[in-house]
Amino acid sequence: MRPSGRAPDQMRAISIETGFTVHAEGSVLISFGDTRVLVTASVEEKVPPFLRGKGQGWVTAEYGMLPRATHTRGSREAAKGKQSGRTQEIQRLIGRSLRAVVDMAKLGERQIVIDCDVLQADGGTRTASISGGWVALRLAVDKLLASGAIAEDPITAQVAAISCGIHEGTPVLDLDYIEDSNAHADANFVLLDNGNIAEAQATAEGATYDEEALLRLLRLARIGCGEIFAAQRKATGR
Amino acid sequence: MRPSGRAPDQMRAISIETGFTVHAEGSVLISFGDTRVLVTASVEEKVPPFLRGKGQGWVTAEYGMLPRATHTRGSREAAKGKQSGRTQEIQRLIGRSLRAVVDMAKLGERQIVIDCDVLQADGGTRTASISGGWVALRLAVDKLLASGAIAEDPITAQVAAISCGIHEGTPVLDLDYIEDSNAHADANFVLLDNGNIAEAQATAEGATYDEEALLRLLRLARIGCGEIFAAQRKATGR
Amino acid sequence: MRPSGRAPDQMRAISIETGFTVHAEGSVLISFGDTRVLVTASVEEKVPPFLRGKGQGWVTAEYGMLPRATHTRGSREAAKGKQSGRTQEIQRLIGRSLRAVVDMAKLGERQIVIDCDVLQADGGTRTASISGGWVALRLAVDKLLASGAIAEDPITAQVAAISCGIHEGTPVLDLDYIEDSNAHADANFVLLDNGNIAEAQATAEGATYDEEALLRLLRLARIGCGEIFAAQRKATGR
Amino acid sequence: MRPSGRAPDQMRAISIETGFTVHAEGSVLISFGDTRVLVTASVEEKVPPFLRGKGQGWVTAEYGMLPRATHTRGSREAAKGKQSGRTQEIQRLIGRSLRAVVDMAKLGERQIVIDCDVLQADGGTRTASISGGWVALRLAVDKLLASGAIAEDPITAQVAAISCGIHEGTPVLDLDYIEDSNAHADANFVLLDNGNIAEAQATAEGATYDEEALLRLLRLARIGCGEIFAAQRKATGR
Amino acid sequence: MRPSGRAPDQMRAISIETGFTVHAEGSVLISFGDTRVLVTASVEEKVPPFLRGKGQGWVTAEYGMLPRATHTRGSREAAKGKQSGRTQEIQRLIGRSLRAVVDMAKLGERQIVIDCDVLQADGGTRTASISGGWVALRLAVDKLLASGAIAEDPITAQVAAISCGIHEGTPVLDLDYIEDSNAHADANFVLLDNGNIAEAQATAEGATYDEEALLRLLRLARIGCGEIFAAQRKATGR
Amino acid sequence: MRPSGRAPDQMRAISIETGFTVHAEGSVLISFGDTRVLVTASVEEKVPPFLRGKGQGWVTAEYGMLPRATHTRGSREAAKGKQSGRTQEIQRLIGRSLRAVVDMAKLGERQIVIDCDVLQADGGTRTASISGGWVALRLAVDKLLASGAIAEDPITAQVAAISCGIHEGTPVLDLDYIEDSNAHADANFVLLDNGNIAEAQATAEGATYDEEALLRLLRLARIGCGEIFAAQRKATGR
Repeated sequence: MRPSGRAPDQMRAISIETGFTVHAEGSVLISFGDTRVLVTASVEEKVPPFLRGKGQGWVTAEYGMLPRATHTRGSREAAKGKQSGRTQEIQRLIGRSLRAVVDMAKLGERQIVIDCDVLQADGGTRTASISGGWVALRLAVDKLLASGAIAEDPITAQVAAISCGIHEGTPVLDLDYIEDSNAHADANFVLLDNGNIAEAQATAEGATYDEEALLRLLRLARIGCGEIFAAQRKATGR
Repeated sequence: MRPSGRAPDQMRAISIETGFTVHAEGSVLISFGDTRVLVTASVEEKVPPFLRGKGQGWVTAEYGMLPRATHTRGSREAAKGKQSGRTQEIQRLIGRSLRAVVDMAKLGERQIVIDCDVLQADGGTRTASISGGWVALRLAVDKLLASGAIAEDPITAQVAAISCGIHEGTPVLDLDYIEDSNAHADANFVLLDNGNIAEAQATAEGATYDEEALLRLLRLARIGCGEIFAAQRKATGR
Repeated sequence: MRPSGRAPDQMRAISIETGFTVHAEGSVLISFGDTRVLVTASVEEKVPPFLRGKGQGWVTAEYGMLPRATHTRGSREAAKGKQSGRTQEIQRLIGRSLRAVVDMAKLGERQIVIDCDVLQADGGTRTASISGGWVALRLAVDKLLASGAIAEDPITAQVAAISCGIHEGTPVLDLDYIEDSNAHADANFVLLDNGNIAEAQATAEGATYDEEALLRLLRLARIGCGEIFAAQRKATGR
Repeated sequence: MRPSGRAPDQMRAISIETGFTVHAEGSVLISFGDTRVLVTASVEEKVPPFLRGKGQGWVTAEYGMLPRATHTRGSREAAKGKQSGRTQEIQRLIGRSLRAVVDMAKLGERQIVIDCDVLQADGGTRTASISGGWVALRLAVDKLLASGAIAEDPITAQVAAISCGIHEGTPVLDLDYIEDSNAHADANFVLLDNGNIAEAQATAEGATYDEEALLRLLRLARIGCGEIFAAQRKATGR
Repeated sequence: MRPSGRAPDQMRAISIETGFTVHAEGSVLISFGDTRVLVTASVEEKVPPFLRGKGQGWVTAEYGMLPRATHTRGSREAAKGKQSGRTQEIQRLIGRSLRAVVDMAKLGERQIVIDCDVLQADGGTRTASISGGWVALRLAVDKLLASGAIAEDPITAQVAAISCGIHEGTPVLDLDYIEDSNAHADANFVLLDNGNIAEAQATAEGATYDEEALLRLLRLARIGCGEIFAAQRKATGR
Repeated sequence: MRPSGRAPDQMRAISIETGFTVHAEGSVLISFGDTRVLVTASVEEKVPPFLRGKGQGWVTAEYGMLPRATHTRGSREAAKGKQSGRTQEIQRLIGRSLRAVVDMAKLGERQIVIDCDVLQADGGTRTASISGGWVALRLAVDKLLASGAIAEDPITAQVAAISCGIHEGTPVLDLDYIEDSNAHADANFVLLDNGNIAEAQATAEGATYDEEALLRLLRLARIGCGEIFAAQRKATGR
């Protein structure tokens, strides 16, 4: 029995509210249960130095957590003067996941920055960020298409992410904070709507796992991402 | 005529939503028009080193702005590795303003940290932070009183803050971003509900001002804070 | 009775020694009693990035305190690796105050950097920095005028600053360290010789204050700045 | 055909030289072909703050790359003043992987720090670090056992890691730098000698991959880790 | 002929003004010609962690240069967020030089911090800092002796320092900035009044030098330090 | 009697292994007894900003020590976020020493970076770095000559460095860690094969020294450098 009473393959309620803030080219408040992440996509007419003059675009991400998004207050990274290893790992994952579905030549020499700021945390903040990031990216690209700034849609697929893990011996989908703290294995899958995998990460915590468990976790992730893909389509009207 | 069509002494719509996030002892989403700040109050059973063993409490504040809270994306302070001078100035002001209405002996040897994170900016983020900070503080202290952790209410008054300035020669209340960018003088007043002043700051931008103007701005601030006091009372049920 | 025996509206002795160091275009050692600040003005034939190519100049300031300027040694900011919030707040105030009396178009596309380094501190270091900063700026601009680098005087007025506060219930002028530590309210006014205000900041410490007190403090500041204006004129031969 | 002429499931030559440096409790120079990593294990009679007084030990890792370990010189992280996100991600992975095979209660309240410094890089530095890290850890623990500092062996299994990826459409084992730069997918597996998985990470680069490919990569990793396990046993005389 | 018209073995005018600031236990403004350094000695009743509980004292030094001490403005180290390698090298040298003449057991478990801040630079700032540092240290120790805090004088000798170098082929004493910029070799000697050497550093700049030149430079340094020792004695009334 | 049983003027075994790593233009593993430093020379077709467009080259050095190069583990500078004063002092010395034997005009507008990373430390790491640095530099320059990138040999002499000191009253050559920890004076000499001196540094530790001792240490250094010059020639086939 899961602490939340959910079935092993049951997601928490997903909600995607677009236009949560007004300035960004794409803005989304995504919730997986009590986890709430504000994701914005900002279009910048410049690219990182290594891409200048190559006619290609770039998508990158930054991630942060408000100090009191969590049960007890964490210190503010801006005040500490550096981003933690965890933060950097997460924002690299988000950027990589979104780049997997963007044709950089079609995007043209511009950059889209995805900012993921966790307003409230209850497990799964990185997967909510990726899933909401796709929506913010989609909205920003739609504006570029509408304005004629780009001619062909550079987004090649939907991408979504979900966590799963082995909790008290049972593979379960979409871990909340309590499960995450006690899971024996903790996995994050980033999947495309065509069934392909952009990223698979499965980490033993306390107990290592076997190949069968890995496959079972992937199966759960497919269920979860299916729901997210539907929510993404609904949010973007596609 | 103000860009927004408001009368010189007219505030933007104020909204204070309590309980916006669940973990913090006090949590508020405060809006002054399009300016929206998430303020949390976190109770910590420790005090800064200089207060240890003195039987007194402390109230401090941190301030941040999400990178795309603004019209164009600003860089993330955590990624840059330091807080700007502006950020530090603002968070020092917020902390000072709230400490002005707290009896530290009654609070006891514990600290309340007020985190003010700007989700969307349209002028007046520091004054919204102070005004919402009081509500978050009030909620957190109410919990301490309810639990019996403290016996007597350490909050001695309501405190609120509002900006005003001289825009195209006219003193106006509650500047939005467009007015703020063009104002010739820019003031922030932190007032108590008993009429006293906790902080007055009036800065010339482009043109210096005379004493009469300073008094006129203070008068406007009294009008604005009156509205905020009412909204604070409504939000906290007092 | 003030600890120093001064009358409530009595300044400490002001001294302004020009040419204290030889390399800077303007160099001043200013003293307000035991507070001594070395202020230099450096002319640089460049402007910050946001002003490049606009035909306008810039004035900015940096502030520092020698580690043993104070009663007990403070840590060196260069060794700690960052400037404190207080330092940043002060140097922003100094820069803003001086810019209030400079016509940037007449200055031309160059920058004047005002460095204020406190050799000895006894209260009022920021106001001494502003008051001395004007003299250093005046000297540097005089050199630019003499050399023909600029044609018209870009300085539009004199600017001076003084602190005042409420000490044991009495509004007093030009707080020294002992008074500053115990004041119930602490204000800094930056005034122009034409009577206008460039900046007013009045902060409650321990007790909030009313509007009458604010006005009384401003009145005291006018007395103090009058004396400083005279000393500035004498020092610059104007 | 692979650039190196290797078969798809062929590892590069593995070499593990113990005692490469004299001071560390465990010291190993591990090579996977031209990739050479110096790994040391340092026993410290202290634990991180969050473990103090709990009677448990800790294993952690740090990773670095000499500036000219690579084809063109990279900047020195100590000179830049911070570790890159990549470095932090790798050292977190190394620590996690080794902790997966250590019984912290048996280790007792002490810490073993694994330092992995890449002397020469040709792909696979993180997996060589983990594989060599286990040997250094084994040597250090053997000393603790020999000296009687700990009574029971806290190491519960062998752990090794290997990269694999999809290069020109073919799943291949143990990518060198040229393959790594062009791979369409890049995976790292951390396996135990009992067949279990401690960590699986498979990332799309350029093209996403399907489930079958993931399993094929895992299969290759099992082949590679088998060879590493043998080399580890030989190096440690077990 | 030297640019200044001085003879090869001629020092610039030395001036040592004690009591330049009032708070420090020892305070000195030392000038070697146009080089002026404010040196303070601060007594702290604590020692660095590695000395705690050993009954020994410590002497350490910090060095800084005001931004416009030099011909053109240099950036402020506190603003840049770190001390340069040059600054660190100099402050390490100052501390080492002064520790060479202090009996740490007689000093007792306390620390004396020597702050050397260059108000104006014209070559020789590190040697002026050491020479002035000894005076500030002497004054601070005299206060400790007078107050009875320490019983026996911990200062075992006088220490002074001077630069010399090879300028246009001629060994010269006490280089000013112009000579220093063009010298082919640049040496700093730290000497004791008993003739012993605490530190000798001779660096080739542009041309290496032979043993005879090294000895000639040392001879010059003895002449220079002789003058400084006399000035130190006069300043401290010994 | 020296702890190692060596005669006072006896060096430890010197070994210079070229080509220790494959990517760098010059690569050397140099050992002075148990001290082992990996030195690489990297040719970069750019120069620092202050040299751009002047047709001159530059040689610079960076130094690091692996955390467990020493008897007990030191913290990693990259993790601490800054290089220590000692590190900076050493790398400045290495760069200066090598620049003393390079004709920058003949090198042409390119930079050679010497990276010195201490794999194992037993005293004398900076002198081994300089001595090995010359070999790495020689190898890199030989490649530039062979490829025709430069026409004339810019290296004007051999340079080597050795430490010596006064240990239990006896001047000794090539201090190992035990001697270094207890030496009363500690000197480093950087010498050219023509007998000239590039740098002499002699520091009192515990006891100051006289001129005769300085000369005796220099004599010892000549003996030591003679051996190193021979080893350098053998390693580079000159």
